[in-house]
Amino acid sequence: MSGADKGFQHAILATDIVIFAIKEGSLCILLVKMQKEHFRGYWAVPGGLINPSEPVEACARRNLLKAANADDVYLEQLYTFGEVDRDPHGRVVSVSYYALMPDWRFHLSNSTEYNAIEWFSIDDLPELAYDHDDVVLFAIERLRSKLTYSNIIFNLMPDTFTLSELQRAYEVVLNKKLDKRNFRKKILSLNQIASTGRRTVGKAHRPADLYRFKRKTVEIIQVL
Amino acid sequence: MSGADKGFQHAILATDIVIFAIKEGSLCILLVKMQKEHFRGYWAVPGGLINPSEPVEACARRNLLKAANADDVYLEQLYTFGEVDRDPHGRVVSVSYYALMPDWRFHLSNSTEYNAIEWFSIDDLPELAYDHDDVVLFAIERLRSKLTYSNIIFNLMPDTFTLSELQRAYEVVLNKKLDKRNFRKKILSLNQIASTGRRTVGKAHRPADLYRFKRKTVEIIQVL
Repeated sequence: MSGADKGFQHAILATDIVIFAIKEGSLCILLVKMQKEHFRGYWAVPGGLINPSEPVEACARRNLLKAANADDVYLEQLYTFGEVDRDPHGRVVSVSYYALMPDWRFHLSNSTEYNAIEWFSIDDLPELAYDHDDVVLFAIERLRSKLTYSNIIFNLMPDTFTLSELQRAYEVVLNKKLDKRNFRKKILSLNQIASTGRRTVGKAHRPADLYRFKRKTVEIIQVL
Repeated sequence: MSGADKGFQHAILATDIVIFAIKEGSLCILLVKMQKEHFRGYWAVPGGLINPSEPVEACARRNLLKAANADDVYLEQLYTFGEVDRDPHGRVVSVSYYALMPDWRFHLSNSTEYNAIEWFSIDDLPELAYDHDDVVLFAIERLRSKLTYSNIIFNLMPDTFTLSELQRAYEVVLNKKLDKRNFRKKILSLNQIASTGRRTVGKAHRPADLYRFKRKTVEIIQVL
């Protein structure tokens, strides 16, 4: 610790939120276009500075509402990024979160708060501002890992869904194909979903049973 | 956001570290006795303020070394506690970590840095300073959860151990008895441990095979 450092141990605090949804068969995140100097024109995950009278999580919720028009979706603290030089404006420590949206269309009614805000497939991301490449990678890793040992996927699903749709959601997040027969056997054995007694209708496919999650609370279970 | 809040968005940053070890058949954490006003005489988990030129994790490592004389043990960021009133000295946001020590005796050679520093069983904790009760509960929950879906326990074990000692470590952390036969069958099926070819010697017990972990990198596996 240098002499100049002594007595000054404050930092600017911010939150960043990686907002996930499945859109058109792809795992997507919501990005906003920066207008501030240094990163003008770059895309970044939504977020903002924490007010002095604001708890850190409340700041994340406020920015989630602003960006995604969502106030009761799943939000989990991810990691605090505390490298010294991560922001050219000064010492900014960011408490990152990730959120899971059951429907990517939520955010559309609120899209005028930003210059530009768009969904990007995680397979086709632009270069991001700050250390947001790291933040996003960290979030994807946490989400994939947690999908295998918890029931967290329910936060990305609509209220009712077919088994094929649920399998497809797992495949999209995990980025791998699953065997249909094994998946159905496993998922039905977990006591997580129940048939609604209703079926899909439409001309393109045969009718399929619609399911729902029995409980919408996060539980540790071995899924895959 | 009130008018008085505007333009002031700095906070003091700190780290707190919940340092776990198994000592005399109990899951224990290392606590230090506070000398600062407000909490003088209270016990707290070790930690300290982050220097302006110091990455957050480096601060945690520095305080871990100071408290536990350990610089290469498992350290994982736990959670950032960001409630506004958690510290009577001002707005202090704490990035908490937990560490796992393979041997509780590590810390003893370094014990003069603090007024008092002691191991406490988690079953017999004193009232803690700040929100450290919450920090410790959060750490215990994370550790217990992670024990069931990863091989993280190797960080709490000596280099070689008997199956009984490994079972006892799981029992101590999870706070429940495990069936000996099922435990042995499961743990041997996971391809995590290997016999060293050596056995314990001593008069009190029959000789038992000594095992070691094959790999000391954290992996996601369903253990229990």
